[in-house]
Amino acid sequence: MAGFHVRSVLVTGSNRGIGLELIKRFIGKSNPPEVIFATCRDPEGVRAQELKNLASKHPNVVILQLVSGMEPNCAHNQSCILCPEATDSASIKSAAKKAEAHLGGTGLNLLINNAGVMPPSTLESATPEDMLSVYNTNVVGPLLVTQAFLPLLKKAAQGSSQKGLSCSKAAIVNISTVLGSIEKTPETFSFVPVVSYRCSKAALNMLTKCQSMGYKQDGILCTALHPGWVKTELGNFQPNVQADLTVDESVSGLMKVICDLSEKHHGVLVSWEGNTLPW
Amino acid sequence: MAGFHVRSVLVTGSNRGIGLELIKRFIGKSNPPEVIFATCRDPEGVRAQELKNLASKHPNVVILQLVSGMEPNCAHNQSCILCPEATDSASIKSAAKKAEAHLGGTGLNLLINNAGVMPPSTLESATPEDMLSVYNTNVVGPLLVTQAFLPLLKKAAQGSSQKGLSCSKAAIVNISTVLGSIEKTPETFSFVPVVSYRCSKAALNMLTKCQSMGYKQDGILCTALHPGWVKTELGNFQPNVQADLTVDESVSGLMKVICDLSEKHHGVLVSWEGNTLPW
Ligand SMILES: NC(=O)c1ccc[n+]([C@@H]2O[C@H](COP(=O)([O-])OP(=O)(O)OC[C@H]3O[C@@H](n4cnc5c(N)ncnc54)[C@H](OP(=O)(O)O)[C@@H]3O)[C@@H](O)[C@H]2O)c1
Ligand SMILES: NC(=O)c1ccc[n+]([C@@H]2O[C@H](COP(=O)([O-])OP(=O)(O)OC[C@H]3O[C@@H](n4cnc5c(N)ncnc54)[C@H](OP(=O)(O)O)[C@@H]3O)[C@@H](O)[C@H]2O)c1
Repeated sequence: MAGFHVRSVLVTGSNRGIGLELIKRFIGKSNPPEVIFATCRDPEGVRAQELKNLASKHPNVVILQLVSGMEPNCAHNQSCILCPEATDSASIKSAAKKAEAHLGGTGLNLLINNAGVMPPSTLESATPEDMLSVYNTNVVGPLLVTQAFLPLLKKAAQGSSQKGLSCSKAAIVNISTVLGSIEKTPETFSFVPVVSYRCSKAALNMLTKCQSMGYKQDGILCTALHPGWVKTELGNFQPNVQADLTVDESVSGLMKVICDLSEKHHGVLVSWEGNTLPW
Repeated sequence: MAGFHVRSVLVTGSNRGIGLELIKRFIGKSNPPEVIFATCRDPEGVRAQELKNLASKHPNVVILQLVSGMEPNCAHNQSCILCPEATDSASIKSAAKKAEAHLGGTGLNLLINNAGVMPPSTLESATPEDMLSVYNTNVVGPLLVTQAFLPLLKKAAQGSSQKGLSCSKAAIVNISTVLGSIEKTPETFSFVPVVSYRCSKAALNMLTKCQSMGYKQDGILCTALHPGWVKTELGNFQPNVQADLTVDESVSGLMKVICDLSEKHHGVLVSWEGNTLPW
């Protein structure tokens, strides 16, 4: 789209998979963002090495540590999901503070909530641990990240002279999936039940719709995107079944869709090919 | 519907509101069920008094203690939602064992997952505690209850000579809401945001669809019902705003719909008036 320019973007879960490729594409744009916040939960870990290499070559890439969802942080057990004595979303708040300092008075144009998990889960095998921890990462995470970055998104919208809604003004893009479409569940349920994941992504779709209602007056576009079935660790859930798309193909589609997003995609689930999917 | 006869039914959250009224209606049928399992989380509490009075008059009413969702049960803190050292769904399993013993070899025809909570929650105020505990009661609860009672539902389906799907054969009815319809969110979001509730009920709708896929081969009907906006504690969420329907009106509609449920309602969200609602 002519005139499409995102001055600042943040992608969660950007150390591998779709998130990492999104970072690469923003770096490679002819008019790249001035700041690309690449968040991951363990920037010092081996799995962040490729991202660190990228950041060392591209000074506009800023790595921030961020865990998607509530962080259990109590003395009892490091994996109590919701212990009222000590649960926190410290990394999210701290990432937002650092981003604000880095942006020096300007806002954040585009927030991409990409971090997600998809453990195996059937109607028989789904456990409360599975259900709650997937919900925590895939739904509570995007909620908290959006709450924390909302002032920066609002600032970007206010500072923009653009009419209407777009990603170069201010936008929240939640990476969802067709597996979160209740309507389309019969097409895929038998070979990929992933009950905890489906429930979480249906809820993320609802969150996206609620955000589209709540943030429209602020000039913030809110859209859920389905990246296709992609050859990442998450996508290659079964050893014998191959995902359809390479990361390259999926993210090429996603970047085009992101560029073209407008009012008509507000509160909508859109595929990597630009098609509207049913709830 | 002629020939409609539920021999055994279970309703969760049946000490007040819609659940209690459902129990009363099953008691009052011309051909009442032989066993009506009325579950509540605190049968000895003051809030179960009306249910206890009913049970003392109607020997087909059996009260079972059941908490919807994972029960935090660790030494640290009674409200750690998901502490791997000690979380449990003991009451659900124990209720299923007691029901099995009571049924003496016959199955359970109809499971109504009715227990639910709707605390206030906006995009700004929603907290992880709110999100996770509402999800625990409204989604994890119905999942676990269904897992626990599935053998009894299958037994009812197997023991039935009826063709097709119906509540008098074997059925799971999840009490959902139009507020869980992503499509219809714009109609109500401004005056009742309840973000944590909406996300949980969209997920419950997805769970219902998954159950409809997984349990069809077992002959178990799976449907989500919207009871209307009803004058219960949950429905009267705002002091100045009145719910549309009395409990009486809503449950009259629900009972009619339950009688009429068939194959075409399998995996569908149906209103108290019998209309299909969009996801
Ligand atoms: N691949 C597909 O076919 C497909 C299809 C539809 C939708 N999606 C969606 O696309 C998004 C990206 O998935 P992907 O395929 O790229 O998966 P992936 O390769 O497995 O990458 C997942 C990313 O999320 C991060 N992550 C997971 N849990 C996190 C947490 N609690 N906090 C912070 N980061 C966390 C991971 O970080 P670590 O390295 O630290 O684990 C990783 O960076 C997900 O939302 C997924 O649901 C994927
Ligand atoms: N009222 C409406 O307008 C409306 C509209 C749409 C959908 N619904 C749905 O209808 C269902 C019943 O709601 P209602 O209006 O009858 O509400 P209500 O009068 O507030 O009753 C809720 C019932 O759920 C029980 N419950 C709550 N949390 C529980 C838990 N963790 N474990 C076990 N039981 C629990 C309550 O038990 P305690 O007494 O122990 O708290 C009570 O019996 C809910 O699923 C609700 O979402 C209601």
